[in-house]
Amino acid sequence: MSADLATRAVELFALLRERRPRVHCITNSVVQELTANVLLAAGAIPSMTTSPEEIGFFVSGADALLVNLGTFDRDRRDALDIALEVARDDGIPWVLDPVFIERSEPRAELARGLAQKEPRVVRANAAEFGALLQTEPTAEALDRFALDNITVAACTGPIDLVTSGAKRARIDNGHAFMGQVTGIGCAETALLCAFVAVEDDEFIAAAAALLVMGVAGEVAAERAGGPGSFAVALIDTIASLDPDAIRKRAKVT
Amino acid sequence: MSADLATRAVELFALLRERRPRVHCITNSVVQELTANVLLAAGAIPSMTTSPEEIGFFVSGADALLVNLGTFDRDRRDALDIALEVARDDGIPWVLDPVFIERSEPRAELARGLAQKEPRVVRANAAEFGALLQTEPTAEALDRFALDNITVAACTGPIDLVTSGAKRARIDNGHAFMGQVTGIGCAETALLCAFVAVEDDEFIAAAAALLVMGVAGEVAAERAGGPGSFAVALIDTIASLDPDAIRKRAKVT
Amino acid sequence: MSADLATRAVELFALLRERRPRVHCITNSVVQELTANVLLAAGAIPSMTTSPEEIGFFVSGADALLVNLGTFDRDRRDALDIALEVARDDGIPWVLDPVFIERSEPRAELARGLAQKEPRVVRANAAEFGALLQTEPTAEALDRFALDNITVAACTGPIDLVTSGAKRARIDNGHAFMGQVTGIGCAETALLCAFVAVEDDEFIAAAAALLVMGVAGEVAAERAGGPGSFAVALIDTIASLDPDAIRKRAKVT
Repeated sequence: MSADLATRAVELFALLRERRPRVHCITNSVVQELTANVLLAAGAIPSMTTSPEEIGFFVSGADALLVNLGTFDRDRRDALDIALEVARDDGIPWVLDPVFIERSEPRAELARGLAQKEPRVVRANAAEFGALLQTEPTAEALDRFALDNITVAACTGPIDLVTSGAKRARIDNGHAFMGQVTGIGCAETALLCAFVAVEDDEFIAAAAALLVMGVAGEVAAERAGGPGSFAVALIDTIASLDPDAIRKRAKVT
Repeated sequence: MSADLATRAVELFALLRERRPRVHCITNSVVQELTANVLLAAGAIPSMTTSPEEIGFFVSGADALLVNLGTFDRDRRDALDIALEVARDDGIPWVLDPVFIERSEPRAELARGLAQKEPRVVRANAAEFGALLQTEPTAEALDRFALDNITVAACTGPIDLVTSGAKRARIDNGHAFMGQVTGIGCAETALLCAFVAVEDDEFIAAAAALLVMGVAGEVAAERAGGPGSFAVALIDTIASLDPDAIRKRAKVT
Repeated sequence: MSADLATRAVELFALLRERRPRVHCITNSVVQELTANVLLAAGAIPSMTTSPEEIGFFVSGADALLVNLGTFDRDRRDALDIALEVARDDGIPWVLDPVFIERSEPRAELARGLAQKEPRVVRANAAEFGALLQTEPTAEALDRFALDNITVAACTGPIDLVTSGAKRARIDNGHAFMGQVTGIGCAETALLCAFVAVEDDEFIAAAAALLVMGVAGEVAAERAGGPGSFAVALIDTIASLDPDAIRKRAKVT
């Protein structure tokens, strides 16, 4: 599994750089810059408007759509409905990041409704999946969630778990700095969204993206003196990540 | 005074890392990322939504609330009223940063009204305090402001002055780079807010936070080649600040 | 031409540091922090509110106004009308950055209308000028656009072209990293706006600003290991750019 997924991740990352997919991001204002820079470093082309007047045009020209629920203001609410309608009509895949829903019940409600609208992948941490599922997010609960909603669950943490219900991958890459910088998880979901733009199998796309991000995090941490320089090194690393590093460092089961 | 405050600052900074207070920030869109990263580096947990629909939930789950008046759009205006009501009802301390009020009279008016609603601390620079007090912000004027409004005034600049009216501290730490990077003052108020979350004596909390930030600025400046690398080094430094550096570098009178 | 423009760029950059013009930026939420830090590093004083209630006060106290059309939400739409009215009444120069208009026809329409309201300079890349002019943005087409709209066209790319219709400058400085970091183009327009604040001849101001940014990009790239560290080094470089570097590296025809 580890060698297989690493090989697929290397191939998909190369494909992403070649195709340069456009990823439109409805994401929170805190992480827009980091998200855009992670996408650019990976070879994708980000756009970020949340204006209801314009979002339809941006989404219809995009290869994938990210829906991140942070700082969900009025424009974002109105833009979301338009974006999802365009994505559905045009067959554009979308990915959900229900950030911080454990802190706000209305946001959790919104996320539960969105999870039923066939996002290709839902990426969240354990606390967020707990609020989404309204139960302990065990591997079995995540399997059921994926099957019930015809999606893939990507639960990130010290060990990432990706499941389609039928298949599971556990990825034991990454570094503690990734939890000490704002927006790393959000940017990771955006990278995952870029992988979904170039790979129809959402399970493979999600697992490959988390593997690439985890390995990049490890390499960057070796060059960093703290979370500030880590964030800078992460962008540099993604922009020049060695396929051999992915193959050698992959810890997938 | 210097040794006492340094000792308290070291203790409170350790307590902050242990308790990991949640700090909800109504802050401007320019500085959200830096603010979140400073809070994370210090050990606090930031949240940033300004959505009226959600802010009540975030504030009621927070240990302190930051109100920064930058980029004060319609959502922020509506969110502010809800946030302050929840903070009052739940006894959550809040801190005011009246950024750039000398440039906009309506913003100055807003700040004057907020100052009367018992923020634990008001942190601003001399120009902003001048607009807030509508007079020269001398030490005596700041004393009166603090007494009249039952708050603490923290006026930052080359030398920081903190006063409760009854007590004053002057902190002569910091570095010129701190004025050359956007959002350092805003992030400093957020750090101060995290100290208020773990220390009931607002005067001590404010002075300790400014001392920690000033010392971190000095250490970071020694590693920096300009304001860009300074901002990165500041995050690294806060994440790993040596208590001995606080004790040895403290210049408090 | 090269020596002349380099000399003027050095003079204007020194003047900018001396006068410290205030630049009010209506710009997108993705790039606000980088834009503010580029302006601060150059010696200008940025402000960024897009609140309709406040923007008039900020613009009337500013020396130049930037209008960047990214993430153009409702507040920005309402604020724009007020800002342009104040700028016209008070004789404050303004600069247009029609970012990403090739992706959204309503945004392109908005930009076409704004181009007729006498911005001192329009700065965009070739794709954006293509959408603005609704034709291939050849040097001749840009000349006509500048003459018809009484403005200066600054078309950036591997080689930058600046034209007033009567005069043209081509600047062959810069580095590929500048296209791999979000907001470099937007920040470049903000820097250009700061030059317009201190120089009445918009053609000279625009060409000088692009030359300074291009040279800074080259110097920063030599210190960078990728786009992440490039963005940091760019801020450091602008803050301490050697006039000799501008003179020696200038490639202007």
